[in-house]
Amino acid sequence: MRVCVLGTGVVGQALSAKMADLGHEVMVGTRDVESLLARTEGGMAGGPPFSEWIGHHPTVKVGTFAQAAAHGEVVFNATVGHASLDALGAAGAENLDGKILVDVSNPLDFSKGMPPSLFVSNTDSLAERIQRAFPQAKVVKTLNTVNANVMVDPGQVGGGEHDVFVSGDDRAAKAEVTRILREWFGWRRVLDLGDITSARGAEMVLALWVRLVPAIGTWMFNLRVVT
Amino acid sequence: MRVCVLGTGVVGQALSAKMADLGHEVMVGTRDVESLLARTEGGMAGGPPFSEWIGHHPTVKVGTFAQAAAHGEVVFNATVGHASLDALGAAGAENLDGKILVDVSNPLDFSKGMPPSLFVSNTDSLAERIQRAFPQAKVVKTLNTVNANVMVDPGQVGGGEHDVFVSGDDRAAKAEVTRILREWFGWRRVLDLGDITSARGAEMVLALWVRLVPAIGTWMFNLRVVT
Repeated sequence: MRVCVLGTGVVGQALSAKMADLGHEVMVGTRDVESLLARTEGGMAGGPPFSEWIGHHPTVKVGTFAQAAAHGEVVFNATVGHASLDALGAAGAENLDGKILVDVSNPLDFSKGMPPSLFVSNTDSLAERIQRAFPQAKVVKTLNTVNANVMVDPGQVGGGEHDVFVSGDDRAAKAEVTRILREWFGWRRVLDLGDITSARGAEMVLALWVRLVPAIGTWMFNLRVVT
Repeated sequence: MRVCVLGTGVVGQALSAKMADLGHEVMVGTRDVESLLARTEGGMAGGPPFSEWIGHHPTVKVGTFAQAAAHGEVVFNATVGHASLDALGAAGAENLDGKILVDVSNPLDFSKGMPPSLFVSNTDSLAERIQRAFPQAKVVKTLNTVNANVMVDPGQVGGGEHDVFVSGDDRAAKAEVTRILREWFGWRRVLDLGDITSARGAEMVLALWVRLVPAIGTWMFNLRVVT
């Protein structure tokens, strides 16, 4: 499948590498391709510079947000939350219309001290803002509750017996994303939270997530819903 | 131990019954004792009228918020979130000073439609509001992430292999509450999230909780942190 991944940080890299390894035609989208490839320092989250990473993943193409979105049959939003609406605007509504838009971002606000708070929450969510801004895209919120490594290899944590959530208004889109999560990424437990407003729940879990990391001493964890 | 439980709804009843069964001297606190005992209809969450419930729990005493708080060596706040600060004000700072105040409440806001949102979240929490209002009390947030039945009998769900969180500024108070959770209520996994600001995480989980109930079809569940 032709896949677009918007964002070139650790999340975009993890998703792109996994899908390219599976044989999908991946194009990552960025604001400015030249400056991305010229950059020699690593990302905020500690990964290698993109120019080094792309050398290890020669089948992954790089383009502007618009080129990548035009390429993709399915589009992943892996940009940082505060830049997501701008990035999607640059991708262009015409390149998103009718497509599944898998929103992996989090509305983290680092401006009010650590750990981060959320710049939208409670009665709205970033996923809803994206769906309102791009009404013809089929937004499905998922994967935002786990570390990038766990996203594409859930078996690294607790034998894979933990839950990933999906939220969205389009049932067929959620079914297709659920298939991708299971068949491509290896998720065994995919829990449908409901319509796109249920992304509030998935995003607000981050307030617990940022407290759990220091409490348990690792990013490699996930939540399991136990009944 | 002499225990105070503020609030007479399903949460207050579950906590009171359990602790009375264990032989503790429980007094539940309410705004108006006479009107509580005269009421013949059940609570919002479907329990029996308090007057019927108290007949099954004859060792549980009933008093005003202030009488109950004065009685308790440890105080549980099991009032509905929007009434908690008023109830604690009626209990009286002088009856809370120096005591452990176990805050089980949730800042649920039902005024903006269902499922409820939160009336405080993100950069503040109900637990923090309570701690600021009663600086001499040792507030420990816990148990708010599970149904009343699970609070006092975690083994009813998944063999008890799931997590309850504690948040608070006073380490000794958290240690004592952890002991109570383990020895009185049977919790095997108690996870210290950090200082009282970490209650934001525990309270914001409710946004996920209210979506999980319809998604999985039961209130009898909890989250397990899987590593």
